[in-house]
Amino acid sequence: MRCVIGVDAGGTSTRALLADESGRRHGFGRSGAGNPTSAGLDTASAHLTEAVLSAWMGRDESDLALPARVVITAAGVASPELVRVVTGSLASAGLEIPVEIMGDVLGAWYSATAEADGAVLIVGTGTTAARIADGQVARTADGLGWLLGDAGSGFWVGREVARAVAADLDGHGPHTALSATALAEIGESALAAARRALPSGDVRRTMPWRSPELIDFVAWVYQQRPVRVADFAPLAFAAAAAGDVVAGDIVEAATSLVMHRAAQVVDDSDGAPLVLTGGLVGPGSPLAAALATRWPGRCHRAVDGSAGAAMLALRRLGVPADGEVLARIQRPQANEDKRGA
Amino acid sequence: MRCVIGVDAGGTSTRALLADESGRRHGFGRSGAGNPTSAGLDTASAHLTEAVLSAWMGRDESDLALPARVVITAAGVASPELVRVVTGSLASAGLEIPVEIMGDVLGAWYSATAEADGAVLIVGTGTTAARIADGQVARTADGLGWLLGDAGSGFWVGREVARAVAADLDGHGPHTALSATALAEIGESALAAARRALPSGDVRRTMPWRSPELIDFVAWVYQQRPVRVADFAPLAFAAAAAGDVVAGDIVEAATSLVMHRAAQVVDDSDGAPLVLTGGLVGPGSPLAAALATRWPGRCHRAVDGSAGAAMLALRRLGVPADGEVLARIQRPQANEDKRGA
Repeated sequence: MRCVIGVDAGGTSTRALLADESGRRHGFGRSGAGNPTSAGLDTASAHLTEAVLSAWMGRDESDLALPARVVITAAGVASPELVRVVTGSLASAGLEIPVEIMGDVLGAWYSATAEADGAVLIVGTGTTAARIADGQVARTADGLGWLLGDAGSGFWVGREVARAVAADLDGHGPHTALSATALAEIGESALAAARRALPSGDVRRTMPWRSPELIDFVAWVYQQRPVRVADFAPLAFAAAAAGDVVAGDIVEAATSLVMHRAAQVVDDSDGAPLVLTGGLVGPGSPLAAALATRWPGRCHRAVDGSAGAAMLALRRLGVPADGEVLARIQRPQANEDKRGA
Repeated sequence: MRCVIGVDAGGTSTRALLADESGRRHGFGRSGAGNPTSAGLDTASAHLTEAVLSAWMGRDESDLALPARVVITAAGVASPELVRVVTGSLASAGLEIPVEIMGDVLGAWYSATAEADGAVLIVGTGTTAARIADGQVARTADGLGWLLGDAGSGFWVGREVARAVAADLDGHGPHTALSATALAEIGESALAAARRALPSGDVRRTMPWRSPELIDFVAWVYQQRPVRVADFAPLAFAAAAAGDVVAGDIVEAATSLVMHRAAQVVDDSDGAPLVLTGGLVGPGSPLAAALATRWPGRCHRAVDGSAGAAMLALRRLGVPADGEVLARIQRPQANEDKRGA
């Protein structure tokens, strides 16, 4: 029986799954950040190789045939260099296997459904909506990054939180509970360090009309990479749930933007699946609730991207990986976490 | 008669003005970028020294007393290091003069009025509104930078243009004339260079559903510093004037934000001056028109920041620099441009 390895190359961790063509799982491996865009080519390829080798070395049957295909799914643009490096590293370790890289959208899709048509909505740090037709991405809406798009995403919500906090502390915006929670989230010592790192070291004297909190907050934010404001996103959902009006407006605006993006790719008439993935559309989130209300019974959550990558690898071999195969491939085995750790 | 040198340290150029306590201009100098935050300490101090020396060396009367004070005005936080370096450089050239640095808000104020109370509104790449009381900045609204504030500023408008273009080219937003003008503004060869610099070099194959224009535009934007999108701001005003609906919405939103910031610092009842400066509130601009409609007869334009810096320097000497002094200090002499060039 042929087998494959599916790899989900994430921004913080990488998961690799060894499965056969019936969908049965034979091995699982983990490693660190595997996305070449954010982690860099060297780090990403090292982690990808480690996860694949770990899944293969820990296989539950010693007489399995060498995997016929490795499929890596990753956000962003496919990187031929990454494929070249990983293929070489695996070959050096005795695994001569064709390696392919595909988009995270298809990985998410096949980790949740074996259907051929529908839509995917990713709302994590960024926002991407995609229409799936005949098992391929037919088109996308957004996915344009923090400066040009990603409407309603973690970055978008977090930036609105940061702006609302700055406006409140500056006095030109309404008071919001977000100010206290954002300052607490950053922490006293980080704020003090940011203040000390200011070029002048003495802003409090040159801008005495600004509150010390505002001066520290502004200093801290501009000393981070812009994407860091995405960390404030959960504060908006918590404060909105607790009745904060400013946070409620942010969540409402984000929901409206995300619904608009989803509506670009969901066909209201076909009843096909809408696969959700990303931190902002997790179970219990207001965005997931809004989507389930608008498209009842159609929302499915993508949980394990490596299952989707393995489904893609099987399909590349010509295996008609259907719902039964998916059901098996989705079912982690009891000892997997220990083996893959 | 005592004299002073006022220096306007801008992001792209520096202007220095030698004036006596009657307001009469005796010399003028120019140089390159003088803002330490954007140009760096070394470059800024070299340009500031050059402009001051040029104003002094080109003075119209050889028996003038050494200036009693140099006041530099600059955006952002006062830099004691810059003052130290410039003071040292001037002393090495034989000019032992006390040097001070002050905010660009006060410089703008005194370049347009000799009154003690009112408001300043700066709408350039950023947005800052300030209340002036008793010749000092009493408080500000915004001025919080591109990520946290600067509502309705050149950066804000330019980013909205970039997002509208991306949404149009992606098909999830309405069509707008801004797309053609933004792509033309960047230019064919810069877009082609951005495409070649992409890590994969082959996005068009991996994302065939995206138009080549979108792929190139996204690549170009993310290869620039974020602040670069401010260059798109003039396109919004031009397209809005020509009837483009998307651009009209952007200009309307920017106007509303800027009016809100101004309203934070303008006292509707006192009739005091509102001093405007920055590219977005220039003569004929829709923002300037909206401000003049809301506060008729009160809007004054700051033209030459070095005049304001010289006024500040005179006031530091205890000279009661009034409207007559300002009128003289604002009046460039016929041969100045040649001398200062």
